[in-house]
Amino acid sequence: MDIVIPLYEDFEPLDAVGPYQMLSHLPGAAVRFVAVGETKQVNDSLGGLHLDVGARYQDVDACDVLVVPGGPGARRLLTDGAFVDWVRRMHAGTQYTTSVCTGALVLGAAGLLDGLDATTHWASGKDLAQYGATYTGERVVRQGRIITAAGISAGLDMALHLAALLTDDTTAQAVQLHAEYAPEPPFDSGTWEKASPAVRELVHQLP
Amino acid sequence: MDIVIPLYEDFEPLDAVGPYQMLSHLPGAAVRFVAVGETKQVNDSLGGLHLDVGARYQDVDACDVLVVPGGPGARRLLTDGAFVDWVRRMHAGTQYTTSVCTGALVLGAAGLLDGLDATTHWASGKDLAQYGATYTGERVVRQGRIITAAGISAGLDMALHLAALLTDDTTAQAVQLHAEYAPEPPFDSGTWEKASPAVRELVHQLP
Repeated sequence: MDIVIPLYEDFEPLDAVGPYQMLSHLPGAAVRFVAVGETKQVNDSLGGLHLDVGARYQDVDACDVLVVPGGPGARRLLTDGAFVDWVRRMHAGTQYTTSVCTGALVLGAAGLLDGLDATTHWASGKDLAQYGATYTGERVVRQGRIITAAGISAGLDMALHLAALLTDDTTAQAVQLHAEYAPEPPFDSGTWEKASPAVRELVHQLP
Repeated sequence: MDIVIPLYEDFEPLDAVGPYQMLSHLPGAAVRFVAVGETKQVNDSLGGLHLDVGARYQDVDACDVLVVPGGPGARRLLTDGAFVDWVRRMHAGTQYTTSVCTGALVLGAAGLLDGLDATTHWASGKDLAQYGATYTGERVVRQGRIITAAGISAGLDMALHLAALLTDDTTAQAVQLHAEYAPEPPFDSGTWEKASPAVRELVHQLP
């Protein structure tokens, strides 16, 4: 089971590492990163991760699962015709084509979301309409073999859904147990609906 | 606010990237990785992340917050006297000294957990006793300015606790909203207590 996660300049780290962490422990799965750009060096959006990626996306002809992470750099991908074509080509042969956060916009640009329900980061929900998709605001949205996840941390939940589809519930639950994924956030402020006016104002000023 | 996360050969990726993702968006905070090893190149435990880290731990004399991630490689750190000494020295000057997963064993080896309650990955709870610590099995345990988190994904929750301590609740909630951290795991199998016998057996066979 060949799972491919493209990384590009200014990807959001948890978008990529969440699914990578979960799916790497799936029996029979091999997860690999591929670089989108001129070189095999990729830097994340937060300035701390400087990665040497083993391959470029052009080196990959097919995969079983594609996971497109989001991040500030995803916007630049939308006009990268060669990469968008590659996503469309990969999708023709995948079992599942998936996204986290604004990675959904890349799927949209590739024409994969036309007429479908989908989700993305709460701040980008309105951007899905231009691709013919309906933003549902749900955590994980599956439409056949396309799965989109909400913002950043939602890739963890999407990966467990995906793990169950690729194997079975017991295996996905074992992956969850390994990662001790029994979340207990100290606040209940993770969605726009739940956040207070003060939090909504402050979120736009965060670095 | 200088937040330092040491990375070493075979660190578990989400242990480090979870807190990094959350804390990097904290106003006034700078999060940086430092390498533990002969070079500034570090590889994670899952084989996909090959990192060029900007500095070695020896280059850092003090920090405000220390976050020690866990992973298979953490065991080797326990007998690395120079690194353990550095952790102890850092702690003398931190506002908060923290760990995720088996990073707690490193704090233990540095003598920081003697007589304290603490937590770590469920599979390593029994290993805390040799350092005079009591494993509580809780998600996040704060004892004064030492905070330990449970396995792998628990660093996300720990980071939000820490964010509130370093700033205020509203800011921590804005960080949570930014990451859309409103978890919805599709299964309730994230702790040993909640996992079924079949899941408990399978978890030890995962890659």
